[in-house]
Amino acid sequence: MSVAVFLTPQHPDGVEVDPTRPQLLVTDQAATRGDGVFETLLFRHGRIREEEAHLRRLAGSALALDLELPEASHWRAAMQLALGRFHEGAGEGAEASIRLTASRGVPSEGGTFWVLVSGVSRSAATSHGPEDGLRVVLLDRGYDAAAADRAPWLLAGAKTLSYAINMAAQRWAQAHDADDAIFVTSDGRVLEGPTSSVLIARRTDAGVTLLTPELETGILAGTTQAAAFEVAGEAGWSLGYGPLTPADLLAADGVWLVSSVRLAAAVTSIDGVSVPCDPELHRVLVEGLDAAL
Amino acid sequence: MSVAVFLTPQHPDGVEVDPTRPQLLVTDQAATRGDGVFETLLFRHGRIREEEAHLRRLAGSALALDLELPEASHWRAAMQLALGRFHEGAGEGAEASIRLTASRGVPSEGGTFWVLVSGVSRSAATSHGPEDGLRVVLLDRGYDAAAADRAPWLLAGAKTLSYAINMAAQRWAQAHDADDAIFVTSDGRVLEGPTSSVLIARRTDAGVTLLTPELETGILAGTTQAAAFEVAGEAGWSLGYGPLTPADLLAADGVWLVSSVRLAAAVTSIDGVSVPCDPELHRVLVEGLDAAL
Repeated sequence: MSVAVFLTPQHPDGVEVDPTRPQLLVTDQAATRGDGVFETLLFRHGRIREEEAHLRRLAGSALALDLELPEASHWRAAMQLALGRFHEGAGEGAEASIRLTASRGVPSEGGTFWVLVSGVSRSAATSHGPEDGLRVVLLDRGYDAAAADRAPWLLAGAKTLSYAINMAAQRWAQAHDADDAIFVTSDGRVLEGPTSSVLIARRTDAGVTLLTPELETGILAGTTQAAAFEVAGEAGWSLGYGPLTPADLLAADGVWLVSSVRLAAAVTSIDGVSVPCDPELHRVLVEGLDAAL
Repeated sequence: MSVAVFLTPQHPDGVEVDPTRPQLLVTDQAATRGDGVFETLLFRHGRIREEEAHLRRLAGSALALDLELPEASHWRAAMQLALGRFHEGAGEGAEASIRLTASRGVPSEGGTFWVLVSGVSRSAATSHGPEDGLRVVLLDRGYDAAAADRAPWLLAGAKTLSYAINMAAQRWAQAHDADDAIFVTSDGRVLEGPTSSVLIARRTDAGVTLLTPELETGILAGTTQAAAFEVAGEAGWSLGYGPLTPADLLAADGVWLVSSVRLAAAVTSIDGVSVPCDPELHRVLVEGLDAAL
């Protein structure tokens, strides 16, 4: 089951609507232009995970698009309304994904804002360990590593509704004997997955280091990546940011795609080449995220 | 007024719906992912302009996205239904824009397909001559000229619903004392406008040459650009394809942004530098398009 709540001028803290009935006009710029932003949050272990980080990123995305958003307090109220209704139907405490969508709406009529809560299976968050890791392909994102910085109109780092390329990249991967993709810049820097952040771990005599690509390339600031860094820090690992290259991925002791709902999925093949994922490092990361998130 | 017609399994040739009422689910991937394609056609002088070219491009875009489309005959029938209803309300022969949208729809439920007919003002198609031309800024598209060719998952050349960057580029232009933008590659090739194709004309002793950027850079195959080439050919002009650079724009005897509804709009300023638009060349182009389209 799903529950939808719209934030409207009349109902700033949200009003429930029927998600099985049409709720959007055909002229809504979410549907005509992909002109809007979104976030996906996880409700788990009785609370919304990384709520502040997601609301902050939503606001940052909206700023990049010059899109006026309801205040965070209204989003919070709407999420609570939607979760309450969801749990009445799905059972107290049931795990759920919460999608916040902010659209530019119908031209000259103001934005459209809604919350959609849907059930997620427990397995979604714990799948893909070292034994059954993801096969990924590296796909050129077309941009060089400096493009995001010099061209703000490219909206790099904003989580927009214009995800056609992300979806096409995942379809391309699946059509080429892989499960998912990792984008790289035209000049060979590792970026992110179409719907995830990339983490790699290196184990040396001096200890373990967890790395993620640098934000300056225009990737999304990953909320789960940030949580994973906290987990790793508590485990005594060193932390670092890229630049990372495909060679760094192949030489790592663990590569993961991390995202709010799937948490940390091990990668065990890159462009058809097997890569190891250290089971101990995977365990620390997944158990830590499971407890923290 | 607007008229909306949906193409459904029950009504493959279209069924009218009320565009002032919600018609799309919040889970439609047009709205959640910008995952779909579209075309905008002009109804003018009693007929749909460049209908075949638009339907062909729609099919090409859908192919790039691996999206199954209704057959062209169904789109044609749905357009006729929508236009008939539109003209009942707006008056026989009233000029209109016709937007065809194909969305991937709700996950595992098949696509969503609709036609939206709306009135356009006559002035929209004849504005921006040499006396009141557009001020444009050149904006880096992030990609190099070879990206489209080596990375099909970037969907270059497909007219997708993921237009957030196009809209951001136009907002950026308008916030920087300009009317519109022209994208260039990171290696300095002229591409296209966010919602238009670029044409330039050169006048020499040998005659006039009309040029447009080469499709290999991943720009959309412009239907109005193609019509302009026919007009120019009939006027005895030579025709050519890029590569074009910003220097070519500045040195031209005319630069235009062309699109289905606006037809040919003269550009008279590029990055703050005045550029001439030869009134005679403009007249030939606009009158030719007006008659042909």
